[in-house]
Amino acid sequence: MTGTEGLPMTVHGRGLPDRVRIHEVGPRDGLQNEKSVVPTEIKAEFIRRLAASGLTTVEATSFVHPKWVPQLADAEKLFPMVSSLAGVRLPVLVPNDRGLDRALGLGAREVAVFASATESFAKANLNRTVDEALAMFEPVVTRAVEHGLRVRGYLSMCFGDPWEGPVPLAQVVRVCRRLVDMGCDELSLGDTIGVATPGHVAALLTELGGAGVPVDRLAVHFHDTYGQALANTLAALQHGVGVVDSSAGGLGGCPYAKSATGNLATEDLVWMLHGLGIETGVDLGRLTATSVWMAEQLGRPSPSRTVRALSHKE
Amino acid sequence: MTGTEGLPMTVHGRGLPDRVRIHEVGPRDGLQNEKSVVPTEIKAEFIRRLAASGLTTVEATSFVHPKWVPQLADAEKLFPMVSSLAGVRLPVLVPNDRGLDRALGLGAREVAVFASATESFAKANLNRTVDEALAMFEPVVTRAVEHGLRVRGYLSMCFGDPWEGPVPLAQVVRVCRRLVDMGCDELSLGDTIGVATPGHVAALLTELGGAGVPVDRLAVHFHDTYGQALANTLAALQHGVGVVDSSAGGLGGCPYAKSATGNLATEDLVWMLHGLGIETGVDLGRLTATSVWMAEQLGRPSPSRTVRALSHKE
Repeated sequence: MTGTEGLPMTVHGRGLPDRVRIHEVGPRDGLQNEKSVVPTEIKAEFIRRLAASGLTTVEATSFVHPKWVPQLADAEKLFPMVSSLAGVRLPVLVPNDRGLDRALGLGAREVAVFASATESFAKANLNRTVDEALAMFEPVVTRAVEHGLRVRGYLSMCFGDPWEGPVPLAQVVRVCRRLVDMGCDELSLGDTIGVATPGHVAALLTELGGAGVPVDRLAVHFHDTYGQALANTLAALQHGVGVVDSSAGGLGGCPYAKSATGNLATEDLVWMLHGLGIETGVDLGRLTATSVWMAEQLGRPSPSRTVRALSHKE
Repeated sequence: MTGTEGLPMTVHGRGLPDRVRIHEVGPRDGLQNEKSVVPTEIKAEFIRRLAASGLTTVEATSFVHPKWVPQLADAEKLFPMVSSLAGVRLPVLVPNDRGLDRALGLGAREVAVFASATESFAKANLNRTVDEALAMFEPVVTRAVEHGLRVRGYLSMCFGDPWEGPVPLAQVVRVCRRLVDMGCDELSLGDTIGVATPGHVAALLTELGGAGVPVDRLAVHFHDTYGQALANTLAALQHGVGVVDSSAGGLGGCPYAKSATGNLATEDLVWMLHGLGIETGVDLGRLTATSVWMAEQLGRPSPSRTVRALSHKE
């Protein structure tokens, strides 16, 4: 795992932020589609190791109905095992009022809601129209804000949709504005099927700026389905985005399956950010060791190129 | 293979070229490290299919001594099988005078020489110092130019070197100038171990411009060892580079092995370029089908994310 420290030359990219906050989604988004249920103790240890590697935001779990996501049915048991970790924000997903109650009851300080930019995905994922889903989230967000919680709004299908094709920018901007207006502190722009390219990313960010959505409220969430995630991230950084979602070891969605989600691997992201002289606070060696350990728990190798390269060194 | 046409929204990136020429290296760089020798007829068919998919430059083979690269020992048999293909440039690698003689004898119109930016790699790869290697190439380049051939100069280890670490920009610039001065039409800047990040790429291109090496003579050759190839390509395009090397299906270097070279996959590159509204002339469906076919010949799946995503669709 050693021997590569200092190998990439650090050359700061012009106009890029000095620091990026990585929103680590491995324990939630990365694990939620795993078929065999990961033991709660392993999940807790995963979160502890991610925090120990320097990640400051680790999305811990989801308070959705256990029937929807069996893998995360242990949220009530898991969250208290990690909630006292120092120096790390532990957002949790809440789909509705009942989920918020459970999160509040366990002392969560940060929650996330999950909206869609397209009607087809809102229907498929939430069995609602886009506006019905927003109406469902609004009281949840309001109440979370009243309790002093930070609220993140995830927005799926911001670039392409498997049923509708390319998603018009104005359609994404409209939902973003609604989420900001209802009180979301941060929006995570998701390329759920991984089709975006850097010009499209730049165009959406420009459009959002023009519509008065401040860039410091924006995060990007790219998938590597077509290998575009890191190039798209670079485009987002060049437009002032300072929060990037990624998943340790690239967990989440099998790159071999048709339904590949292929989260951007945190290690590949950290390699680029550190090479660009952008601080993350992450110790890449410890993070890679964590992903190697987690890959052993899951019984298959990490799809992250950086994890593979670093873990095959002597 | 169908059903994705039109999925990515095309949004032209500001300041990017309208057209990029892809220098396809699959048949040479992609195959040279394959352990089991690929039949010559399969190689010829691979080149024919690559050309039929719209690639206009396909590096066909190498006239090195068969002892060095047994996989390409059939160069003399292979080249005449494809040399009459219309509309496609077929450069071949020549290491020395004898290699050039063989290439000229078969009617090659374009050759490439292989230099190193670092002493360690020059020693390891060519058993010479950097300057001794340049001195060896100079008469080859001169004679090729006299015969009216186009000459490409490959430059390895332009960013990092496994023995020396980060490579000083001035060291790369010096060798580039020498290659241009001796008559190379095009330089391919190689990130042989895949460690570069976009700021480093931008800095080297800026330095080369300042030293009078015209950007229209430059190509970039990135490896995906750490997942950085496409982000680095974007940085190069933003600096005016219009020729990009890649390998169909990501052939060349196993991503699982320590010695992974991990060529940028042509399909991942084409996805980005087309999304950016940059013309390549490539039919992505035909190219992906070619890589799927080649993966069947080699008996293992392509590491290209785009090939995997497109070939798993109905």
